[in-house]
Amino acid sequence: MAEQAKLYEKLDSYVKDSREEYEAKLAEIVEVPTVSMDPDHKEDCRRGAEVALQYLQSIGARARVMETPGNPVVFGRIETGADNPTVTIYNHIDVQPADPEEWHKAPFTFFKENGRYEGRGTTDDKGPALTAMMAARYSAEHQIPININFIWELEEEIGSPNFEHFVKNNRDRLGTDSVLVSDTIWISRTRPAVPYGLRGAMMLTMTLETGAKDVHSGLTGGPARNPIGEICKAISECYDASTGRVRIKGFYDDVRRATKKEVDSFLASGFTTKKFKSDHELKKLRFDDASRVVKAIMAEPTFEVHGITGGYQGPGVKTIVPYRAQAKISCRLVPDQEPKKVFKLIQDFVRQRNPDIKTEYISALEPYIGEFTGRFADAASDAMKFAFKRQPAFTREGGSIGAVVTMKKYLKAPIVFLGLSLPEHGYHAKNENFDWGMASGGIKMFVRYFDEISRFSR
Amino acid sequence: MAEQAKLYEKLDSYVKDSREEYEAKLAEIVEVPTVSMDPDHKEDCRRGAEVALQYLQSIGARARVMETPGNPVVFGRIETGADNPTVTIYNHIDVQPADPEEWHKAPFTFFKENGRYEGRGTTDDKGPALTAMMAARYSAEHQIPININFIWELEEEIGSPNFEHFVKNNRDRLGTDSVLVSDTIWISRTRPAVPYGLRGAMMLTMTLETGAKDVHSGLTGGPARNPIGEICKAISECYDASTGRVRIKGFYDDVRRATKKEVDSFLASGFTTKKFKSDHELKKLRFDDASRVVKAIMAEPTFEVHGITGGYQGPGVKTIVPYRAQAKISCRLVPDQEPKKVFKLIQDFVRQRNPDIKTEYISALEPYIGEFTGRFADAASDAMKFAFKRQPAFTREGGSIGAVVTMKKYLKAPIVFLGLSLPEHGYHAKNENFDWGMASGGIKMFVRYFDEISRFSR
Repeated sequence: MAEQAKLYEKLDSYVKDSREEYEAKLAEIVEVPTVSMDPDHKEDCRRGAEVALQYLQSIGARARVMETPGNPVVFGRIETGADNPTVTIYNHIDVQPADPEEWHKAPFTFFKENGRYEGRGTTDDKGPALTAMMAARYSAEHQIPININFIWELEEEIGSPNFEHFVKNNRDRLGTDSVLVSDTIWISRTRPAVPYGLRGAMMLTMTLETGAKDVHSGLTGGPARNPIGEICKAISECYDASTGRVRIKGFYDDVRRATKKEVDSFLASGFTTKKFKSDHELKKLRFDDASRVVKAIMAEPTFEVHGITGGYQGPGVKTIVPYRAQAKISCRLVPDQEPKKVFKLIQDFVRQRNPDIKTEYISALEPYIGEFTGRFADAASDAMKFAFKRQPAFTREGGSIGAVVTMKKYLKAPIVFLGLSLPEHGYHAKNENFDWGMASGGIKMFVRYFDEISRFSR
Repeated sequence: MAEQAKLYEKLDSYVKDSREEYEAKLAEIVEVPTVSMDPDHKEDCRRGAEVALQYLQSIGARARVMETPGNPVVFGRIETGADNPTVTIYNHIDVQPADPEEWHKAPFTFFKENGRYEGRGTTDDKGPALTAMMAARYSAEHQIPININFIWELEEEIGSPNFEHFVKNNRDRLGTDSVLVSDTIWISRTRPAVPYGLRGAMMLTMTLETGAKDVHSGLTGGPARNPIGEICKAISECYDASTGRVRIKGFYDDVRRATKKEVDSFLASGFTTKKFKSDHELKKLRFDDASRVVKAIMAEPTFEVHGITGGYQGPGVKTIVPYRAQAKISCRLVPDQEPKKVFKLIQDFVRQRNPDIKTEYISALEPYIGEFTGRFADAASDAMKFAFKRQPAFTREGGSIGAVVTMKKYLKAPIVFLGLSLPEHGYHAKNENFDWGMASGGIKMFVRYFDEISRFSR
């Protein structure tokens, strides 16, 4: 324990001394617009990988950019001893698109004010990635007997289409005793959260063409079909938008219901409906009861229309009958729903009612559920408490991280989530931000976690 | 009748000799993009008015550009004698927008091939306007005892918002014995059509905002409202898109049903469902029975979604919950429906079901019904037969011409429709076109019509 005392003695000053470097590195990488969804940013993703590579090398990791059929993955390793256990830290350094007109500052320009960092990717997930990296350096420099692998993905925001390819092709170098994922969100700044589950997601489009061109609604309106109207009808048959309830038979069959104990733990996260509404600037919800809301986000599936387009989009009302309409849709899924099975249910349901609507499967992420008891969960809880002075609540995430399911399948190691984002950080939204409070606490949290799990028997 | 013989003796050669001039004038005015719907083309509309003014002056009319709060109206008069009757020819020289990517040639470049003229506005309504103008010159030069007024509007495609202002402010110079409108469409090239009625239209938007920004569907999906889903639901409650049937109580109350005689006359126009589908490139219709189709277009109201927008429109599926959705909607109306009453029905219906949806009235055109018997109808029928060698069918138009209702109200004179457009001309559609066959027949038709009505006692 003398070693231990020494380890933590210098941690506060290390954190303090690292701030300038942390901010400079975060600024540099935030200003590379690694938007994986937009083909125009393909080269920026590659540039982002090169910057990340240099960062990992700068802390003493052996690192390389590994090719996949899509964007590369940056892989690094800090080796402390062949007999020591290995922890694999997963982060991603691709980001969501950002519309400059919606932001109050340029989204790919790093902006810093009073320990608050603004820019696309600051909280999701470049900020947390660099936080874990700073902790790893400290851990290695202070001889914590653990080897640390880094997996920094560049396709998380598009559902990790090539991540399985990467893992399968590199299984020999990816052996690990546990996985640490830092890409999740607390419910409230006042209470840390450790998630143990993720919703999955299944993306699809519905497209209907009823003609070859827009036609005059005076000349054809009446007998002419209206593809927008028919897509609206199909959507309204699939679900009741007022309640969110899906009307497709069998949709809820495989849903594993959350237990009372789980819901109590969700609520212990500091969740309040009022805060949830203000965090996301939502005027009204479908329902307001806190346990109903929290259960719906963490443990229930959805049917969601992300975008719809069809017909005239310019100024005024142009009285055409459009020839085409399309909706972009996804379902968030929970254990034990299977994406392909859910897709088939929707496709058949729509086809029976309107055979001309083309329902197309785009991609999917499986739902995930892990453990919230056991030594890794306990270590996560201890590390959170050490850094943030409060016992965390065990929650489930409403979002999806495709790579988690893949790592579970191939790496066969316990997965722990230690996230640092807050609701007010604007995950996927305009004016995304992160802050030094979470980053500095995060460095301490990761060091403590590495220390604890380094002592687990293998 | 010696005079008469002389009048028609030279008509064929006049028509032939006018072709080059007609094509040059049509080319020049088609190349002015008089898109009234787009504020960016405000100056082009003014330029179009100046070109039209020169044309009218070139045939010997006293003409001027008359101001309104919006685009001007070009007014002209050929005076043959104070005691002669006056006919007022209405046309419009504004056009629909055109998306260059959809056209196979640039829409505002005049293209001529084998007597076929392509370009936005060729058939709607610049081509017919110049046709009537050429006939008017011949009529004046051959001393047909009739005065001819020209009203060339520049806001027809946006529902004539300032036309009433124009008519009210110029009532003293607009006195007329009859009105001739040339902005309608035959059902088939093989059979002329003389419409005696128009559908009206009432334009509205439905807008729903449920938040302040797009949010992450993982973080909020479930409790968060989805404005696209709710707008789809509202639209599906308003009408059944499969059949077109409006579900709003009272919507059909004021519809004056078409008589059997009317429907028989509609069908005599040469209408076939097969041709209708191929003219408009429609794959399937809501129903196929010819009398049902023709009645639906000419004598029944509609609920139509012209455009819908909301959420993510870029590549891929971005899993947001959008904060806003909007639909652009209109109802075509038939006698005796009143636009404001119909709007109120819809607004109340939607408000009761979803009070957060904002239903906004944009504009309206009243439906119109005139006579298909009497001396003006007979003269129209004769003139059509004279020029195109077949008795025309009396039909009703599915489209709307706002100015007609205004002229009926203020000018208190019979209104006759002598249109020259064909279904294959692509009215309001891509690759709009007109042809010398219709233009040359049209010149003869108008001359004959002027001749006949010049002899009516006042």
